[in-house]
Amino acid sequence: MKARIKITLKNGVLDPQGKAIAHALGALGFDGVGDVRQGKYIEVELDETDRAAAEDKIQRMCEQLLANTVIENYAYELEGS
Amino acid sequence: MKARIKITLKNGVLDPQGKAIAHALGALGFDGVGDVRQGKYIEVELDETDRAAAEDKIQRMCEQLLANTVIENYAYELEGS
Repeated sequence: MKARIKITLKNGVLDPQGKAIAHALGALGFDGVGDVRQGKYIEVELDETDRAAAEDKIQRMCEQLLANTVIENYAYELEGS
Repeated sequence: MKARIKITLKNGVLDPQGKAIAHALGALGFDGVGDVRQGKYIEVELDETDRAAAEDKIQRMCEQLLANTVIENYAYELEGS
């Protein structure tokens, strides 16, 4: 089973990397670009066939290691059996 | 209109960050973790109402700035009006 995890900064947390991207896009001539936010995307291959067990595992992984839950949100999708 | 862009390393490209995450998950006691790949996730707010124009713009942004297409793939979703 494969988990696709998106980790994003919470609203209100300053995102200098996103600001830099927005600025660079402007410099390249792209107009009409509003807010840009950068996060992380992680794919984890799990040796787990039970969906509930996999969800539980992924949640614990996010809480313990992958996301800093003080400033970041996480969301995930599970795919495959 | 909001674009959600996922940028991932192409298959076969070494991903030391992913390997480090897999190793750390193992050290934390998570078993059954296979391949881990880390990529980037970027949200771009676009001042654009036409879907085709927005897609074209996002593709050019990815090619020119956001993704290194030699070693990375990108995928995006558009959301909103």
